[in-house]
Amino acid sequence: MRETYRILSEQGFSGASIDAIAKQSGVAKTTIYRHWPSRADLLLDACAKMGSKIEPPDTGKLKEDLTILLTHLARELKSARWSSILPSIVDAAERDPDVATVYKKLHGDLMAPYRTVLIRAQERGEFSKEIRVSDILAMTVGALFYRRWYSREPITEKLVSLTLNLALASFEIA
Amino acid sequence: MRETYRILSEQGFSGASIDAIAKQSGVAKTTIYRHWPSRADLLLDACAKMGSKIEPPDTGKLKEDLTILLTHLARELKSARWSSILPSIVDAAERDPDVATVYKKLHGDLMAPYRTVLIRAQERGEFSKEIRVSDILAMTVGALFYRRWYSREPITEKLVSLTLNLALASFEIA
Repeated sequence: MRETYRILSEQGFSGASIDAIAKQSGVAKTTIYRHWPSRADLLLDACAKMGSKIEPPDTGKLKEDLTILLTHLARELKSARWSSILPSIVDAAERDPDVATVYKKLHGDLMAPYRTVLIRAQERGEFSKEIRVSDILAMTVGALFYRRWYSREPITEKLVSLTLNLALASFEIA
Repeated sequence: MRETYRILSEQGFSGASIDAIAKQSGVAKTTIYRHWPSRADLLLDACAKMGSKIEPPDTGKLKEDLTILLTHLARELKSARWSSILPSIVDAAERDPDVATVYKKLHGDLMAPYRTVLIRAQERGEFSKEIRVSDILAMTVGALFYRRWYSREPITEKLVSLTLNLALASFEIA
């Protein structure tokens, strides 16, 4: 798993063949396939373990909960290994339906804490039931992802709080 | 260029070697290198030509201008070839500083119409000078990018208008 991880971050998804992983790790291919039915399963399993899991906070205020989560995300986007691997999974998912299927689960797991705090806040009445949780996700997490991989800006604390303030403002009057 | 394009969309950035392009197109490698100093230059040049360029609209209302641009973007994200190639450029930029440099320009070109309409609206006083244009970009374009490549949701017209309404609401009271 450690070798898989290293190869993934150095060479991306397309460079991480079962052959290369078997060779570098000294684990036989048959053994690898006994644990993971396909290359996509192995790679995504490696990825699933790489983000430091965060429990959904529960401060009673959406703004505080989201600040905790987005600050954590900003830090991970800056330094966690998964942040340099994810683009290559997203790219692979574009061309390989098997990867797309497993990626979907990975993405769901990544987003679970955000969904939890948003759904709780919606139930507390902090924003209208008519606003879809996935829209808020796209605007907050999406904005940070955009800055990390598309505009390639440094994700500062200030940027996180601006994004968050704008997103929160949006549904106060939406 | 056409072959480059085809190889890019089928195999991604990592599969599009100069060797493969020379072989498929029947153009000698020396000729290719006479036109493009490096592989990254050729690939990004191919990408730069693939989005259908859109002139920044100028209706006098930010909401209308952005609706035009985001509707166009949503359509391109659904069907334009560049939308299945971009993730592989983003991935390559992660690992190759040369690609990152050329990608930066490509991204700037892609975003230029959005910047233009946002700056005009800001000058008209439609939103505060304290709001950074790049924050609005991250929340609108970023949200659509997120839906296209990360959450992999279909980008419907309704989704575009929801994103836009939330983003516009955000700076009415921000």
